[in-house]
Amino acid sequence: MALASRVVDLIRNVPDYPTPGIQFKDITPLLGDGPAFGEVVEAFAGPHRVGAADGEVDVVVGIEARGFILAAPVAIALGAGFVPVRKVGKLPWETVSASYELEYGTAEVELHVDGVLPGQRVLVVDDVLATGGTAAAACELVERIGGTVVGVAVLMELTFLDGRTKLPGRDVRALIRV
Amino acid sequence: MALASRVVDLIRNVPDYPTPGIQFKDITPLLGDGPAFGEVVEAFAGPHRVGAADGEVDVVVGIEARGFILAAPVAIALGAGFVPVRKVGKLPWETVSASYELEYGTAEVELHVDGVLPGQRVLVVDDVLATGGTAAAACELVERIGGTVVGVAVLMELTFLDGRTKLPGRDVRALIRV
Repeated sequence: MALASRVVDLIRNVPDYPTPGIQFKDITPLLGDGPAFGEVVEAFAGPHRVGAADGEVDVVVGIEARGFILAAPVAIALGAGFVPVRKVGKLPWETVSASYELEYGTAEVELHVDGVLPGQRVLVVDDVLATGGTAAAACELVERIGGTVVGVAVLMELTFLDGRTKLPGRDVRALIRV
Repeated sequence: MALASRVVDLIRNVPDYPTPGIQFKDITPLLGDGPAFGEVVEAFAGPHRVGAADGEVDVVVGIEARGFILAAPVAIALGAGFVPVRKVGKLPWETVSASYELEYGTAEVELHVDGVLPGQRVLVVDDVLATGGTAAAACELVERIGGTVVGVAVLMELTFLDGRTKLPGRDVRALIRV
C-alpha cells in the first residue's frame, strides 16, 4: 500500500478532543509503528538529500512539541543540525520571538538567536499544518536571524483551515491532506 | 576527541536559569551540530541493535519535551516504534498516569494505555537524569500496561541529585555525568 494510505490508516480520530465538537487527529499509532515511522522520516528527508532536486539543508527546525518527534530524525537522516522552536519562556538562551493569532487570543514562539547562522539553509518541520500561524512564525524567526527557509514540511495538512495562505511563496509539502 | 568530551564542549552553561542560583545545562548547541547529534543517537542505539549485548527493543519511550528530540531518532535507528510520555492532559486517548514529587509540589505524566503492548521491550530515553522522578514514573507506566523496561538512557546525569536511587535494579546509562 502507498505510504500516504498507510499513514491515514495509522492516524486515530479522537472525537471531542480537546474540546467538544472537535475531532482530533492522533498520530501516536503512526509513531508507534516502527516501519511506518521510518518511511515517514525518509519521505521528509528524501527531497533534501545530497544531489536531490530540492537541495540540501543545514538545519532542520522542529516546532514544539510533536514537531520535535518528526524533525529530529529528519535532521539525523540528513546529517543536519536540529534546532527547536519553542513556546515562549522555554528556551534558556537569548531568543527572538514572534506572536501569531489563534482563534481566541495569541500565542508566541521563540528561537535561539544563534540557532541558525546567517546563510544556513533551513527546513521547517511540524506534525500538522492547521491555520499556518505557527509555521509562518517559525519561518519569520529563521529569516530574522539570517537563515534561508528552503521548505516547510508537515505530516498532515488540514486543508479546510487554509494554512497555506499564511505561507505565500513558500515550498510547503504535506504527506497527507485532510 | 572522544564523544563524551565533545558532548561536554557542546553543552552551554546558562547561569540563573530557570531561577537565580541555578546553572542550566543547555543542550541546544549539541543538537544543532549535525555530526555530533548523529554520534549521540548512535551511542544510544548501539547497545540495542540486533545481536548486541543489551538486546533488542520494540519501543523507545521519549519523555516530553526534550526527551522527544533524542528518543525519536533512536527509535528510527533501531527500527522501533516511538511512544511519548507527556505531561498530564496532553495525550488525546485513554491514558495511565503517575505522579511524582518535585522540590515543591508534584508533577504528573501520562502514557496511552495502548502505547506499549504486553511483553514489548522498552527503552526509556530522556535528556537529563536529575532527581529521577520523571524517569521512574515513565518506567512505572510502561510496566503497568505490561511492557518490560530494558533500560533507561539519558544524555546527562546530574550525579549530585542521586536520581539512580529512584531507579533501583534498572539498567541506567548516561553518556556524560556532571
